[in-house]
Amino acid sequence: MTAAETAADGSHDAADELARRCAAAMYAADRASRELGIEIRDIGVGRATAVMRVSETMVNGHAMCHGGYVFLLADTAFAFACNTYGPVTVAAACDVVFISPARGGDELVATAAERHRYGRSGVYDVTVRRGESRTGELDGSVVAEFRGHSRATRAALLPEERVPGE
Amino acid sequence: MTAAETAADGSHDAADELARRCAAAMYAADRASRELGIEIRDIGVGRATAVMRVSETMVNGHAMCHGGYVFLLADTAFAFACNTYGPVTVAAACDVVFISPARGGDELVATAAERHRYGRSGVYDVTVRRGESRTGELDGSVVAEFRGHSRATRAALLPEERVPGE
Amino acid sequence: MTAAETAADGSHDAADELARRCAAAMYAADRASRELGIEIRDIGVGRATAVMRVSETMVNGHAMCHGGYVFLLADTAFAFACNTYGPVTVAAACDVVFISPARGGDELVATAAERHRYGRSGVYDVTVRRGESRTGELDGSVVAEFRGHSRATRAALLPEERVPGE
Amino acid sequence: MTAAETAADGSHDAADELARRCAAAMYAADRASRELGIEIRDIGVGRATAVMRVSETMVNGHAMCHGGYVFLLADTAFAFACNTYGPVTVAAACDVVFISPARGGDELVATAAERHRYGRSGVYDVTVRRGESRTGELDGSVVAEFRGHSRATRAALLPEERVPGE
Repeated sequence: MTAAETAADGSHDAADELARRCAAAMYAADRASRELGIEIRDIGVGRATAVMRVSETMVNGHAMCHGGYVFLLADTAFAFACNTYGPVTVAAACDVVFISPARGGDELVATAAERHRYGRSGVYDVTVRRGESRTGELDGSVVAEFRGHSRATRAALLPEERVPGE
Repeated sequence: MTAAETAADGSHDAADELARRCAAAMYAADRASRELGIEIRDIGVGRATAVMRVSETMVNGHAMCHGGYVFLLADTAFAFACNTYGPVTVAAACDVVFISPARGGDELVATAAERHRYGRSGVYDVTVRRGESRTGELDGSVVAEFRGHSRATRAALLPEERVPGE
Repeated sequence: MTAAETAADGSHDAADELARRCAAAMYAADRASRELGIEIRDIGVGRATAVMRVSETMVNGHAMCHGGYVFLLADTAFAFACNTYGPVTVAAACDVVFISPARGGDELVATAAERHRYGRSGVYDVTVRRGESRTGELDGSVVAEFRGHSRATRAALLPEERVPGE
Repeated sequence: MTAAETAADGSHDAADELARRCAAAMYAADRASRELGIEIRDIGVGRATAVMRVSETMVNGHAMCHGGYVFLLADTAFAFACNTYGPVTVAAACDVVFISPARGGDELVATAAERHRYGRSGVYDVTVRRGESRTGELDGSVVAEFRGHSRATRAALLPEERVPGE
């Protein structure tokens, strides 16, 4: 069942509420994302948005944002999106295509959406766009396109939850 | 011509010398890698090794090294390996498969090797292994396997160099 | 400019007409697709659908449709979608995730849509779904998700056309 | 344990014998590969080579071998390589980069080698090279580089075998 179908079956509110509780628990423990100033927004079943400002310490030898940080932001959005169902879910594999460079000062917005979920596996698409530049202009141009492949474990993300079927 | 063939044609020393000068110029400008304590080793034509210690600020909500930092290290080794020929060369696309988690304190060693170079494009393989753990034990187990797709631009990396054929 | 933007700028009909003429020229020359009984439908700027029935000669040693044929169908839809602008455009790289097996007799429907186009490069998503089974039941479940990376050459697909900017 | 380590531990002959019996069973059932005239060679633990002649019915609208058939050959080598351990093992995901076009009449040689095996998952690299051309010249240039991600099921490939640990 896709996220959209879950929503359509009437349990939308409970599912989104679980999604938000999973995200809050993950974020509290996710020192890496917090240290980089990443904010998590728009959490729902199978979706998440992560926002980060490119600092001067993220710039590489070609005077652009190190591709690793662009990936890291997309991977964070992916991780929050695929961990909205209850089970601890990990990244099995990811790929990214770099479309235009980001610069120091750019705000990057990574939007993750579930494409398919089957068995314990999932496929998520994440688009990274420029948000507001350092000078306050809105942009919206695409920086990178990311795809993440997830795998749910048999552990529950929230201590009080049971993983369905366990 | 692959890196191995370049080496075999007798111009090995000059090519490796150029590779090292490219790497030195990139590293001097690469604030992102230096801020993370990444060291670059074993530079040669079409190859590079990048080493990083996983700090406590790189740990995610599943108590393991954020996959974004594992990718970033592999991407750094890839960037140094594909920038050993003279032209400024950028990452077009990358993929990574996560094989085992890294923990805070682990030393990670990313070894990049060229697989194919054709026209302005290249394919590089990077294996990320655990090196020394925080307690000094050697390990060597594989953390991730990365593949990078590069694209050479028409700009020269070193100001004094001309890009062949320009 | 994305396909959607092309459409929005008022030249929708001319662009879709060019897309259909490109597809007709390609299909006439594409013996591989015709031999397999692949039909091309719903051609428009940046999009195409390819349909194929899984024959008994496409079944592999695990009694399911050889993944190579699933890929081939998706790759065909991708090729037709990215060749709708005028320049001869080739596949640079592709990836596929296999979600559920197809069987002999299944009808497979591959729908390609452009995700990004930048410079001479493009990214296309193709979803392969089961259409009608041998017994006439409709299905719609997902068989595979494919992503194609295209690269436009400087040659024109239609002899009478000029490639813009040449 | 990698294929190389299996070989090193002294059980090389028994493991390679099992690999060859798995390949023979798969090939007998693999109508798709046989119909295309694909030959399987050099089977061993975690490795396989697949050879195919590009026929005139495999040529696409750009007068080159349809990328789908190049993928299909690589995927076949991958399938035989990852099915050498005993359990029925399926392709979870694959990616391919197209390096140079193949033409009608070319012989293509796909060589698959295991890179990593962990839990029920595996990563295999397959390089597709031109072998003998229609005019009998040897070539060896690279046509495509493929990577396959495998997943072992709990079923045994050979009826008389037990899957270890079941």
